[in-house]
Amino acid sequence: MPELQRSPLAPPEFPDMPGIRGVRLATAEAKIRYHGRDDLLLVELDSGTAVAGVFTQSTTAAAPVCWSRSVTERGYARALLVNSGNANAFTGDQGMRDVEASAVAAADAIGCRPAELLIASTGVIGEPLPVERITSALHGLESRLKTGSWQAAAQAISTTDTYPKGSACETQLGDTPVTIAGVAKGSGMIAPDMATMLAFVFTDAAIPPQILQSLLTTGVSTSFNCITVDSDTSTNDTLLLAATGQAGNRAPHSIRDRELRTFRRALNAVLTDLAIQVVRDGEGASKFITVEVGGASSPAAARTAGLAVANSPLVKTAIAGEDANWGRVIMAVGKSGVRLNPSKLSVAMGGVMIAENGGRVDGYDESLLTDHLQGTEILIEVDLGVGKSKGRVWTCDLTHDYIRINADYRT
Amino acid sequence: MPELQRSPLAPPEFPDMPGIRGVRLATAEAKIRYHGRDDLLLVELDSGTAVAGVFTQSTTAAAPVCWSRSVTERGYARALLVNSGNANAFTGDQGMRDVEASAVAAADAIGCRPAELLIASTGVIGEPLPVERITSALHGLESRLKTGSWQAAAQAISTTDTYPKGSACETQLGDTPVTIAGVAKGSGMIAPDMATMLAFVFTDAAIPPQILQSLLTTGVSTSFNCITVDSDTSTNDTLLLAATGQAGNRAPHSIRDRELRTFRRALNAVLTDLAIQVVRDGEGASKFITVEVGGASSPAAARTAGLAVANSPLVKTAIAGEDANWGRVIMAVGKSGVRLNPSKLSVAMGGVMIAENGGRVDGYDESLLTDHLQGTEILIEVDLGVGKSKGRVWTCDLTHDYIRINADYRT
Repeated sequence: MPELQRSPLAPPEFPDMPGIRGVRLATAEAKIRYHGRDDLLLVELDSGTAVAGVFTQSTTAAAPVCWSRSVTERGYARALLVNSGNANAFTGDQGMRDVEASAVAAADAIGCRPAELLIASTGVIGEPLPVERITSALHGLESRLKTGSWQAAAQAISTTDTYPKGSACETQLGDTPVTIAGVAKGSGMIAPDMATMLAFVFTDAAIPPQILQSLLTTGVSTSFNCITVDSDTSTNDTLLLAATGQAGNRAPHSIRDRELRTFRRALNAVLTDLAIQVVRDGEGASKFITVEVGGASSPAAARTAGLAVANSPLVKTAIAGEDANWGRVIMAVGKSGVRLNPSKLSVAMGGVMIAENGGRVDGYDESLLTDHLQGTEILIEVDLGVGKSKGRVWTCDLTHDYIRINADYRT
Repeated sequence: MPELQRSPLAPPEFPDMPGIRGVRLATAEAKIRYHGRDDLLLVELDSGTAVAGVFTQSTTAAAPVCWSRSVTERGYARALLVNSGNANAFTGDQGMRDVEASAVAAADAIGCRPAELLIASTGVIGEPLPVERITSALHGLESRLKTGSWQAAAQAISTTDTYPKGSACETQLGDTPVTIAGVAKGSGMIAPDMATMLAFVFTDAAIPPQILQSLLTTGVSTSFNCITVDSDTSTNDTLLLAATGQAGNRAPHSIRDRELRTFRRALNAVLTDLAIQVVRDGEGASKFITVEVGGASSPAAARTAGLAVANSPLVKTAIAGEDANWGRVIMAVGKSGVRLNPSKLSVAMGGVMIAENGGRVDGYDESLLTDHLQGTEILIEVDLGVGKSKGRVWTCDLTHDYIRINADYRT
């Protein structure tokens, strides 16, 4: 695998993240695929922790996805075990047995039932999981569990990521101060349908499982489901949200509870921050691209049009080449099939209106865009001219480094 | 625009193609965008020539697409005018006026009505068409019209193509010998929905317009609609079929006419040959990839799964890197959403079975694939394990040259 430079779009440093009461973390080097770095994460959750999850909609979903989907359906969990380097996907019955063996070993370490273990894996598809390396690495790991070691956790779940991704937020639920913290990993095979590759978010708030699931499902639709690196949806996409209840707030009774409003905003901010960090570490990325679509017939149409632009290799290579090739944006919304009015369609880049009312604006001067395109933060705005709905999608450019990384990933 | 080498996947030479009675061609240098090469093609069709067409389904279809769609709906045409270098797409009302001005000038030259003129354009989107350069280049061009200059025609319609594309076939309709010949161009923004960028096929057979349209619509579904270079569908996709009737066969009365069988096979062979030539000139291509999908619930499902594999940047970069990363094939069929049975799914490459019955085959030896992957003709076979339908899709790999070509197309 080629040497990877830290993404030029990376934040300056890992955020200062508070611990979450009821959440303790430890990492280990299991040597599943990587050597000289931790590749296993164990998270202990206090008894009574409510959990929610969204997962890949792939019909070839990995064994750990099937397992964790069942756990989240029951609504409660006591621990989370994550490995990087092997996806345990398309591994048949043996794959499920390997998940179960991992769950048994981790449950032993924590002192809970295997059915209370959430499991996630990321890495190469189709290779048998070396489960004995995981069970060995678990020996004694429980003695190293501690609160707040987020950066080590984010690093242990990384694959082609060039920086660890974390986000946290202090907020309140009703009058009670609560905290939200999460980690995520990217950075290829990113076109989440229900979630991205792996992201884990924790809070000390008390929120019942069904309400937690509803918060997560809504939050993901404007965060992780609005990013794409390369249009390829993973077999292992997993986003989990765990609420330990240690903050001592009165638990909300319904998703419509007014007390949830502030918390929901804070949760969505953390989800969006993590999702954007995944894109900023998109394989080979040199530019971060925001596509804002307005004038759409529905939010779904806005997202579809935005993703068509964000997934177009011709748009992405043009941005990589600092070329204001806005005709490719027209092409992309055209192929998306969403309702639009060609004679009202408009396109702007970097705040400069390029085309409107079905044609290029009079006196359009491409040189006005030069500075914007030479920067790393690119804004593309499209108005479809048919409605009032809007949406926002994030992606990165397509560069030589994407080819370099992916033409030689396994060898 | 970067210097382009002839594709390593190009056929050794342009085929020896016979003239078609009733079809005369001429090319000219209009300097629309390119200099030092012809960029305008005029084709005269004998009076009474039936025509059929399939076009991009883009909602931002170009002005010449709208124009030619109307002409093919009327069923007859006398000429075809094609320019390269400017797509005349997203050019508003002026774009339609420019098409009409071109049609008037070409109709004058040929001696027919503008409504009998088919028009097609390919090139940069969103720039006004310099129509006066086209009308000047048309002056006297009719005197240079001649039968059989296919290679010059294929060259004149090229953009980033690295070789001219042609295909021809001698066949029969009933007992009458007839000839089919066509030209096409690629080579980026190729993910045809109804047709590819530009392809023009001619025959001297007598076939009424409705039957001609039916033959074309069926033929395109297993040829041009089964190729992809980069998943981006053009605003200008146009595939036209013209039948001059000069062969003197008895015209078929219905699409079910048994006499059409041989002709249909020959037509489909020409369409498929041209479609494959477009892929073989895919931007930056170093490998030609055939994806064969079997065990599908329907032909449409087979095509959807095949295109998901063929459009996956992760599959395409793996092939570029000569890496048997078959897990990415599993990922791609999984994200396609088509019905499959994970425990019966199988994947083979180069005829070597890699995975079946939900997991990697026992004793799978990746080194068996080394020779195949180092070659230029790659075969990926997938069986979805749920039905008896199958389909075949063609694509190319994704290389550094794709980035090089497209990060710097307009500048």
